[in-house]
Amino acid sequence: MNISVLGCGRWGSFHAWYADKIGHDVVLWGRPGSKNLAELRDRHANEYLQMPESVELSDDLSYAVERADIIIISIGAQQLRSFAGQLAELPIKNKTFVLCMKGLEIGTGKRLSVVMREEVGPEPDIAVWVGPGHVQDFLKGIPNCMILASDSDEVTARLVPIFHGPLIRFYYGKDLLGTEIGAAAKNVVGLAAGMLDGVHYGSLKGALMARGTKELSRLIDAMGGDAMTVYGLSHLGDYEATLFSPHSNNRRYGENLMLGKPSTKLAEGVYTAEALMALSKEYNVELPISRSVYEIVCCHKEPKAELERLFLRSEKEE
Amino acid sequence: MNISVLGCGRWGSFHAWYADKIGHDVVLWGRPGSKNLAELRDRHANEYLQMPESVELSDDLSYAVERADIIIISIGAQQLRSFAGQLAELPIKNKTFVLCMKGLEIGTGKRLSVVMREEVGPEPDIAVWVGPGHVQDFLKGIPNCMILASDSDEVTARLVPIFHGPLIRFYYGKDLLGTEIGAAAKNVVGLAAGMLDGVHYGSLKGALMARGTKELSRLIDAMGGDAMTVYGLSHLGDYEATLFSPHSNNRRYGENLMLGKPSTKLAEGVYTAEALMALSKEYNVELPISRSVYEIVCCHKEPKAELERLFLRSEKEE
Repeated sequence: MNISVLGCGRWGSFHAWYADKIGHDVVLWGRPGSKNLAELRDRHANEYLQMPESVELSDDLSYAVERADIIIISIGAQQLRSFAGQLAELPIKNKTFVLCMKGLEIGTGKRLSVVMREEVGPEPDIAVWVGPGHVQDFLKGIPNCMILASDSDEVTARLVPIFHGPLIRFYYGKDLLGTEIGAAAKNVVGLAAGMLDGVHYGSLKGALMARGTKELSRLIDAMGGDAMTVYGLSHLGDYEATLFSPHSNNRRYGENLMLGKPSTKLAEGVYTAEALMALSKEYNVELPISRSVYEIVCCHKEPKAELERLFLRSEKEE
Repeated sequence: MNISVLGCGRWGSFHAWYADKIGHDVVLWGRPGSKNLAELRDRHANEYLQMPESVELSDDLSYAVERADIIIISIGAQQLRSFAGQLAELPIKNKTFVLCMKGLEIGTGKRLSVVMREEVGPEPDIAVWVGPGHVQDFLKGIPNCMILASDSDEVTARLVPIFHGPLIRFYYGKDLLGTEIGAAAKNVVGLAAGMLDGVHYGSLKGALMARGTKELSRLIDAMGGDAMTVYGLSHLGDYEATLFSPHSNNRRYGENLMLGKPSTKLAEGVYTAEALMALSKEYNVELPISRSVYEIVCCHKEPKAELERLFLRSEKEE
């Protein structure tokens, strides 16, 4: 199968490496001038992996799109709308897009598949590929379970065998809305976990897991999704990677914030926290943990007092 | 309030220390000849804590029971039936028993509050106190949330303010059955987590969390409890302490088993795995993770192949 991967950062380069490894013909695209692409061209490697020669590198978007049956997108979530607008000008009506990204559009709170659909129109198939796993672990040969979901069961069923391999066992997601909200929101819970680590309250991550899932379950239910999806691989199943792993950008960002250390880049969960505030208002669902993260990160509330208020205020029913 | 704590191991000594700290009059009982009690008598300390002089130490069970309004029990779960039989011979009809233990009776699969009720009759009040938190963390001043549950909301509501303090925020449990099954079964999930750690599959702990909760939710539902209780503090909320903490006995036991290292004592989850097999049969609910743990620990199945079969077999719906 001809597969193109658009975006050549940590995850994009992994997806190209993985698709090649399981036998597909792969083009990895980066924008003209991309430092990541230049590094891959120079030494067929980046800080995470060795890229096989069989993966073709390109900065020609038309070429990468036209030659592929399946197009994986792995770019910053907030760049998706403008990028999808560029894609819409290419011949894409028979393509299948697979979004390997976790986020919500800031300002609107829209899911990424919705943003994509609005820009590319009704014809291309759109799916998401989310769930646990760190690039660093996969590259050591440590397998994991992930999830493919789409608004069409036929599309999901077609994609799973294409991406299946010994390193990744795929589950079929039946609730695209819940899968996307959960996958995005786990980064916000990851920020909260990092904050707890940073103030030596790491043992409260248990309570964080119980209560983080619960508030997002209520939100997804109010939005018309399945209240149980958040307890599956896309959200709870990603907590090991997001709340506990040293590789988690969001956890580390939250921890650094508490320790007064600078973070080299903004974590996606910061945008997602803001987007969740829009959804909380629109669907009239209280999101106490997401709100606290938002207020600490975006409104500079005093973190330790806010975390104590959140977890240790007066007793009540679960 | 006069409180006696029966059992002076790690948790029993902590409960005595804690009850004293929040202002109660406390007797800590150990059986005659108990090494733990002898150590506390000798140096008013054990490997975990300094015991205040205001906590009275005793090996006289009649005395410890008669002087108390509330009696906390913290002994090995499998010893509860015979111990409760001894208690039944004492004047206990107006007492409130609080079981601070996590387990199921081997052979019968019975919950500990059921075992207790069968032995002490209908008159004493019985509650359970479970949830996250490690003794070592509490003693460093790290607070946590825990849960009190009983088959009577009046009993739960009476106990919460008695035990409330800045170190422990209590939630009211509304589903005693689900709370006890979840609290016991988390030790089995902890064993599985340790096994994954031991074979360097720690990143599969995310999938373990998603699927462990799900199978136990189905069991609790079949038993007549609330399918959502397992996602609260008593089970999911205890995963940080049980699946990730270096202090977790069950996690370490599972890890040692994979590494071929001896464990100094049998973890409670080993008994619970066997008890869950009885419940799986009785209520006709498949428990794939619990069964794998049981078969690895008790039937010596080859662990890595069993774990791979469990997590990495063919793809399906979540």
